[in-house]
Amino acid sequence: MAVSRRGFVGSIAAALGYIGAGADANLFAQQPGRTGVPGQGRGPRPLVDLSKVAKINNNENPYGVPPSVRAAMDDPKAWEWANRYGAPDGGLNQAIQELHGVKAENIILGCGSGELLSSITIALLIGDPKKKVLGVNPTYGDPYSKAAQIGRESIRVALNKDYTQNIPAIIDVANKRAAEIGFVYIVNPNNPTGMIVPKAQIKQLLDGIPKDMPVLIDEAYHHFVDTPDYESSMKYVLEGRPVIVCRTFSKIAALAAMRLGYGIGPADLIRKVHTFTTGSQSITVKFGGAASLKDKEGQAKTRALNKQIRDDTIAKLKALGHEVLPSEANFFMVGLKREASEVAPEFQKRDVLVGRPFPPMTQHLRVSVGTQAEMDKFVAAFKEIMAAPAKTSAGV
Amino acid sequence: MAVSRRGFVGSIAAALGYIGAGADANLFAQQPGRTGVPGQGRGPRPLVDLSKVAKINNNENPYGVPPSVRAAMDDPKAWEWANRYGAPDGGLNQAIQELHGVKAENIILGCGSGELLSSITIALLIGDPKKKVLGVNPTYGDPYSKAAQIGRESIRVALNKDYTQNIPAIIDVANKRAAEIGFVYIVNPNNPTGMIVPKAQIKQLLDGIPKDMPVLIDEAYHHFVDTPDYESSMKYVLEGRPVIVCRTFSKIAALAAMRLGYGIGPADLIRKVHTFTTGSQSITVKFGGAASLKDKEGQAKTRALNKQIRDDTIAKLKALGHEVLPSEANFFMVGLKREASEVAPEFQKRDVLVGRPFPPMTQHLRVSVGTQAEMDKFVAAFKEIMAAPAKTSAGV
Repeated sequence: MAVSRRGFVGSIAAALGYIGAGADANLFAQQPGRTGVPGQGRGPRPLVDLSKVAKINNNENPYGVPPSVRAAMDDPKAWEWANRYGAPDGGLNQAIQELHGVKAENIILGCGSGELLSSITIALLIGDPKKKVLGVNPTYGDPYSKAAQIGRESIRVALNKDYTQNIPAIIDVANKRAAEIGFVYIVNPNNPTGMIVPKAQIKQLLDGIPKDMPVLIDEAYHHFVDTPDYESSMKYVLEGRPVIVCRTFSKIAALAAMRLGYGIGPADLIRKVHTFTTGSQSITVKFGGAASLKDKEGQAKTRALNKQIRDDTIAKLKALGHEVLPSEANFFMVGLKREASEVAPEFQKRDVLVGRPFPPMTQHLRVSVGTQAEMDKFVAAFKEIMAAPAKTSAGV
Repeated sequence: MAVSRRGFVGSIAAALGYIGAGADANLFAQQPGRTGVPGQGRGPRPLVDLSKVAKINNNENPYGVPPSVRAAMDDPKAWEWANRYGAPDGGLNQAIQELHGVKAENIILGCGSGELLSSITIALLIGDPKKKVLGVNPTYGDPYSKAAQIGRESIRVALNKDYTQNIPAIIDVANKRAAEIGFVYIVNPNNPTGMIVPKAQIKQLLDGIPKDMPVLIDEAYHHFVDTPDYESSMKYVLEGRPVIVCRTFSKIAALAAMRLGYGIGPADLIRKVHTFTTGSQSITVKFGGAASLKDKEGQAKTRALNKQIRDDTIAKLKALGHEVLPSEANFFMVGLKREASEVAPEFQKRDVLVGRPFPPMTQHLRVSVGTQAEMDKFVAAFKEIMAAPAKTSAGV
């Protein structure tokens, strides 16, 4: 597909001065093992030995499927219906309705929230070749990749110098180029930085852009946030704004390979998204998802462990003289003063898998918060690797 | 969405004389409980009591998930990876490659073959408002419904008087209106009739239409066919033709609520379809699917039981003086000489769920082949119901 993205980014950058140079969603899409979405015909990738390797590259919950969720997936009722259509869902839809105070028409299930990022992108851009997705860079790039795949462009505003999302710039572009914007895309907390958009700025964004402009807010890492400066954007759906909030069971709920997520939005937007959402979910996964929503205690434990281990690791890295971005998620970014692409293979040699590059932040490494043992292994490897002279220098 | 389907069907009918009047894919789509696709935000439907009700309305495998498949879904390796990305697939992709002699690039997994019918329809029609799907009517209507949802039209050729698919008419339309055809759609064996397109006619079709015209062949009921007049169309993919063959684990494999299917086609077509295939599959389901492909003995038993019970039931209906279409599937159609919509509620009163209407065959009832006990219950109900005078008369 012919996509004049580079040229386009250039012209916007010139016009507005917000756009980070050189970022390219395709760079993300082309990295093997990047999406982690299983089963899309490429065949399985080489497996790592989880007993040996610290897999802190994909922001997973390292503690595995909770027993209560496993038990729900083994429910005889689910298996009685496994061969049938019109099967029960273990109370999943009802539980989501109650959790968020919405109706069935406001809910769309996805095979992970990743499915919904794709289908929302298609649904909101496919009808008009001029329509673009507007968000920051770097962030979780799937909507940008999907837009490129269907021949649509992205407007990607650079992060601020402190790596926060430049909300005033997003508002500015949204108004100046309103006719071109299919939707605004915000990940909160952001991936890869782990940093939030404060609740006041989300309000500023929604109040500042055209009233009917759809906004996709990916809250994949919602459950890990502590700061009172943050709040979920679900309330804006209830206010009747054209906001779709996505959640996933792949992170706090430890069901990444089970493929479950959901979106909450106004009925008319949800209907549009349904048309381009082709997946459906296994009955056992839905039973597991319903149980997961009830697993408050288990998730509180995961959240507490994550915070403790994350903050401990960050303290150690700071003590070594490294900048670490303030994270509210189950991952963080550490400044290397050398290229992340230089150190990643070194970590791999030491059985530590770290995050992929997120250009233009090529001198920051994204590190997922694993178990304490995994983070000890990471810190030991970090010291060894960083003790060697850099092949690339700061600012390259 | 504004779709001038009725007007369009009329004009084609006038021009070519092949088209059945009055059929409307939306009629299908609007029936509650019609798709059986779980989890699409409509919330769960009222459940039937499977211990009481003969559920012979959705062409399911009534014998449930085989023990070997259940065991594979419980594999500790699957659960070790349940919280991870980049997880193993239990050998599913490899098994599909070996079964069909294809490469990874020729395979696309779906959440049931239903996902692929949707994504193929979107992928092959969305780029051009003139593009249409061409197939017969009645058949499994999902591609027609999806086309309508995205503002695209269908050309639906009426079945022959003997209810076989009118392949010469399809070829004729495919050539006369080639520029408008996004793809040809064939279900073999057909649903709702249970009747095959003989292998000679599939060859006639593929040889007779423009060489580069994509053809989607849904072989959901492939595994139940006995007659040597039938063959799978997988061979045409291997010949390099633009054919995508879809298979599902929802029928012979008894995994309808687990959501697994796959498509086999040339790499370039599969890539196009990937773009609009948003779903992904649970790791345990993939493990189960791999085991299912090895379950030759269990499937042979299901096939034999299906044939025996189907043929026995059909003989009883014929003995009662009813026409029954020659089925090669796990369902059949019986002629009622009254409206199916009249008898369906009567069956439901007797705890027998039968197939939905398939206009214009409104006086035929589609009956899935359940267990012997279920079919005994069906036959008993049939006798009772048909003994009462018809409210609607033949030919209405």
